[in-house]
Amino acid sequence: MQLPSGLLENAVNEFAKLPGIGKKTALRMVLHLLKQDVADVEHFSESIASMRRQIKFCSRCFNVSDNDTCNICANVMRKQQTICVVETIRDVIAIESTQQYNGVYHVLGGVISPLDGTGPEQLNIASLIHRIETEATEELIFALSPNIQGDTTIYYIQKKIAHLPCTVTTIARGIAFGGELEYADEMTLARSLANRLPVNQYVKT
Amino acid sequence: MQLPSGLLENAVNEFAKLPGIGKKTALRMVLHLLKQDVADVEHFSESIASMRRQIKFCSRCFNVSDNDTCNICANVMRKQQTICVVETIRDVIAIESTQQYNGVYHVLGGVISPLDGTGPEQLNIASLIHRIETEATEELIFALSPNIQGDTTIYYIQKKIAHLPCTVTTIARGIAFGGELEYADEMTLARSLANRLPVNQYVKT
Repeated sequence: MQLPSGLLENAVNEFAKLPGIGKKTALRMVLHLLKQDVADVEHFSESIASMRRQIKFCSRCFNVSDNDTCNICANVMRKQQTICVVETIRDVIAIESTQQYNGVYHVLGGVISPLDGTGPEQLNIASLIHRIETEATEELIFALSPNIQGDTTIYYIQKKIAHLPCTVTTIARGIAFGGELEYADEMTLARSLANRLPVNQYVKT
Repeated sequence: MQLPSGLLENAVNEFAKLPGIGKKTALRMVLHLLKQDVADVEHFSESIASMRRQIKFCSRCFNVSDNDTCNICANVMRKQQTICVVETIRDVIAIESTQQYNGVYHVLGGVISPLDGTGPEQLNIASLIHRIETEATEELIFALSPNIQGDTTIYYIQKKIAHLPCTVTTIARGIAFGGELEYADEMTLARSLANRLPVNQYVKT
């Protein structure tokens, strides 16, 4: 695709670096911006640059934040003794959207994956263990990816905190709500059978 | 979707204004940028702002350009007496991609559409007529949308230049290459029958 202007081409190439955006979609976005007022486009551009420049990460849970401590950690109405361990900020946003969780978080930044060169040192694991030791944490809820790497990470952290009086749980794996049994993979179906619950314990939301 | 930071929310809202981008995709893009270096994000942001600030429109054909005259108009190897009339810059890029056209362009900026409040005055029609009058244009090729608005625009311009010695043509409408007859709409099929060509005139590219 040959573009009539170098400036246009630069902008298209920058947009095309975003995930899921090809050259054609990038061009569509750039031509859209070209139709907007200069002030609007500068506002767009500035809000992205200042987001990256000024955003902070909570010193306690590593969630994104406008301040040194995020809104969730600073909220005294939330159970500070329950920590939900997640991989990324996106997981925090997903769990917050359910409006069903009232504890705090800890963002690991990934999971242990030797093949990708991610060891425990690259993740926020030391700080998590320090939190559990010093904050009298009562429950640690793992909400990690349901794969080998996630399970390894759970196993690693659990061993490190085995001496502490802290309940360790993981979110339920099973057939998704609205999912059909016949299309579920064997692993999920097997786990969901093995971890079956008494009907009166089953929480309906 | 509740976001943990106002800065993040601003950036997500700005991205969500782009065509075809919802809140979730916008969040995905913003979180991607959050993982990049500050310098890279500033480069992204600056290339968009400077594109909008510095880009020019060719004073002759209204294509985007880095200078006052676009590369196509400035190219002496192209037939300056053949003008292809298109709606938008995107159409110029599409036709240029075929590498089959060796004339110049005129970007109207849309088509006549009274329902949307677009009359001839809102489009670059006066400048087109002035070009035809002063540049000794030999052929005017219309490559507009195949709908009532496009046809109205062709009719309007054609009447305005009826007194000038300039051939007026329109790109062929018909069954798309690789398209199947039985799925073509009646209008397209009827036009493609009415405008049938002798086989020896049919240009294979």
